[in-house]
Amino acid sequence: MLKEIGKNAKDASYILASAGGALRNAALEEMAAALGKNTQRILSANRQDLENGRANGMRESLLDRLALSESRLAGMQQGIREVADAPDPLGLLLGGGTRPNGLRIEKISVPLGVIGVIFEARPNVTSDAAALCVKSGNAVILRGGKEAIHSNTAIADALRSALEKAGLPKDCVQLITDTSRESSTALMTLNGFVDVLIPRGGAGLIQAVVKNATVPVIETGAGVCHIYVDKAADIPMALRIVENAKTQRPSVCNAIETVLIHADILDAFLPLLAERLSAYPVALKCDVPSLSVLQGNPNAAPATQEDWPKEYGDLTLSVKTVAGFEEAVAHIRRYGTGHSECIVTNDYHTANAFVAAVDCAAVYVNASTRFTDGGEFGFGAEIGISTQKLHARGPLGLRQLTSEKYCVYGNGQVR
Amino acid sequence: MLKEIGKNAKDASYILASAGGALRNAALEEMAAALGKNTQRILSANRQDLENGRANGMRESLLDRLALSESRLAGMQQGIREVADAPDPLGLLLGGGTRPNGLRIEKISVPLGVIGVIFEARPNVTSDAAALCVKSGNAVILRGGKEAIHSNTAIADALRSALEKAGLPKDCVQLITDTSRESSTALMTLNGFVDVLIPRGGAGLIQAVVKNATVPVIETGAGVCHIYVDKAADIPMALRIVENAKTQRPSVCNAIETVLIHADILDAFLPLLAERLSAYPVALKCDVPSLSVLQGNPNAAPATQEDWPKEYGDLTLSVKTVAGFEEAVAHIRRYGTGHSECIVTNDYHTANAFVAAVDCAAVYVNASTRFTDGGEFGFGAEIGISTQKLHARGPLGLRQLTSEKYCVYGNGQVR
Repeated sequence: MLKEIGKNAKDASYILASAGGALRNAALEEMAAALGKNTQRILSANRQDLENGRANGMRESLLDRLALSESRLAGMQQGIREVADAPDPLGLLLGGGTRPNGLRIEKISVPLGVIGVIFEARPNVTSDAAALCVKSGNAVILRGGKEAIHSNTAIADALRSALEKAGLPKDCVQLITDTSRESSTALMTLNGFVDVLIPRGGAGLIQAVVKNATVPVIETGAGVCHIYVDKAADIPMALRIVENAKTQRPSVCNAIETVLIHADILDAFLPLLAERLSAYPVALKCDVPSLSVLQGNPNAAPATQEDWPKEYGDLTLSVKTVAGFEEAVAHIRRYGTGHSECIVTNDYHTANAFVAAVDCAAVYVNASTRFTDGGEFGFGAEIGISTQKLHARGPLGLRQLTSEKYCVYGNGQVR
Repeated sequence: MLKEIGKNAKDASYILASAGGALRNAALEEMAAALGKNTQRILSANRQDLENGRANGMRESLLDRLALSESRLAGMQQGIREVADAPDPLGLLLGGGTRPNGLRIEKISVPLGVIGVIFEARPNVTSDAAALCVKSGNAVILRGGKEAIHSNTAIADALRSALEKAGLPKDCVQLITDTSRESSTALMTLNGFVDVLIPRGGAGLIQAVVKNATVPVIETGAGVCHIYVDKAADIPMALRIVENAKTQRPSVCNAIETVLIHADILDAFLPLLAERLSAYPVALKCDVPSLSVLQGNPNAAPATQEDWPKEYGDLTLSVKTVAGFEEAVAHIRRYGTGHSECIVTNDYHTANAFVAAVDCAAVYVNASTRFTDGGEFGFGAEIGISTQKLHARGPLGLRQLTSEKYCVYGNGQVR
């Protein structure tokens, strides 16, 4: 069954790969229009998912991610149109030249082929991922969570009809409606059909994919991010940056989980930070020195070993005192997930040393980690944030959804 | 045990990543010199491997790959010095700019970290891979075949002493001396320590890695390559190209396994090709129409379904008749491994259509597939030929052994 989906995707991918940018953009326009025309049908399907969710005791924050509305659907349409407006990532001449033997080599950007996307409860991923894949010439196989199955099915049906109307195979976008664990595992091992698998979700999903996938994977999203407040930090700036990176949207992967504070400024900085964060309030999980500075503070509690590798995703912040730059870097190497890391300092040399020493997708000096985002980086829409070192690191935009091909033109050359 | 090797590699990789290009080049000079100083020790270890190989009935072609000599060792030294002379792939400014909010973003090339290389009986891979990894700032964990264990150990010992002499950790290069299947599997699952695994070897090794690895992998080397001789081909050119691509070095991955011949020129072309290849002689595995053209030819035999996906690696060529361009492309899509594919034609439109339709690392018009090679492409030394679409396609040179990092410089920006 999944093999047939794979074969249909592969066949569609060849046609999509040879479609020009004008045709792909016209299809995206149809896709955006189809979401408009099918608004009521999609919202009604979404209501069913929400009812089931409530009946199953789904948490309020998850229900919020699952919920669609006319304005959220309009946002999805707008998202598709922005992808259509973006520059074509295909057919770019990336390099090459003429070799001494006369061979003319051109390296060009081409689609990856078939992309698998496994995601959880956000139905907007169906249209976001479909739009990015169609624009970049890739067929996509979507496998969303069972909580959103009615919404995803309604959205995918609309998008598939739009593709057909535009003259492209509807199997450029396919949704796996079997939401069993088996269908997920089958997608991870669909070698020969799936060229790249991109999981979008929490640490559990990412780990399952890393463990089980035999197709190539781009790891995304796990974000245990840190801010190191150096002894040479500008204190008001450090307060502002830590507050923003923790509280502006705590559920996302580029929010921070831990602040590392230089011991020399612990007494000066930490009470101000605790005061600042008490407005939310942020729960502070403290190591021994920081807890002693905050004794009596109702938001402060002792940290355990389990806190350091944890992605809270909520208004919790672990606090660790470090003797200096080296200890901060060592902590980040041990517990960071290679996503976004920040130093706040006014010291030129310490800033440069931190940037050089820390190995992650985006390393910051004196700015919030919340900027690790395709839009904020100026890339437009993204399908996720890569935390691996192969292929692409950081925001996965249209250019990152392409591969390359060497085209070699000769007139009879042999070795 | 392997975890300790992984940890040592990770620690060494941080030091190597921060070593400047001058220090890395000095280390490469020491490594080349060390092969010279240890020539007799390495050759003596190699003699032991050869004796064991002969005693175990190793094939002559494998013994040849295993054998070292003073001139082969000199070639390995020369290879290391060429890598030292290549441009530094690290610290390149790949993009970036200043965002409207004043954030200054720089995308720079950085090492991958720790690279695992699993290979078979060629001891020169030990020094080739070590040199490419040190130059690109990556620690390497080598796991060679048991047939070459004495040679590999002697080479790795020499290289490790050289690294230490140059002031770098000797664990920048480590050899796994346990050549059991378990050590290979353990390396494939050394998550958290191995950033990328590159298998170098036959289809069996590649498949084992794809199936078992949980660390990111770059697939290399499997090469079922085709030449499609179009009805508009220049016949003498087609003869020359097919002969070269099959016979010049049949054991390598960019040699062809199958020739696809347009039915309209089968009678005119195939007898000339058979005549040309009889000098070697090349064994021809023919489909029904081509066998009937060659009836009575002692080198021609019927092909079976098993021939089309097979990488012979020797002087065998399968021959298939196709009704035209579309059938040739369909055959390549079904049986090709995404390595190198070629069309011989004088027709402008057919040439362009083939280049667009065939999805592989290198697609050729009127030239031998044997050119898919880092040196021939002008990239210098390579660690293999990638046949996957993620990260890099085609020859894996120094630039392909790097990742990237966004360095973001602010003055207090928050979202």
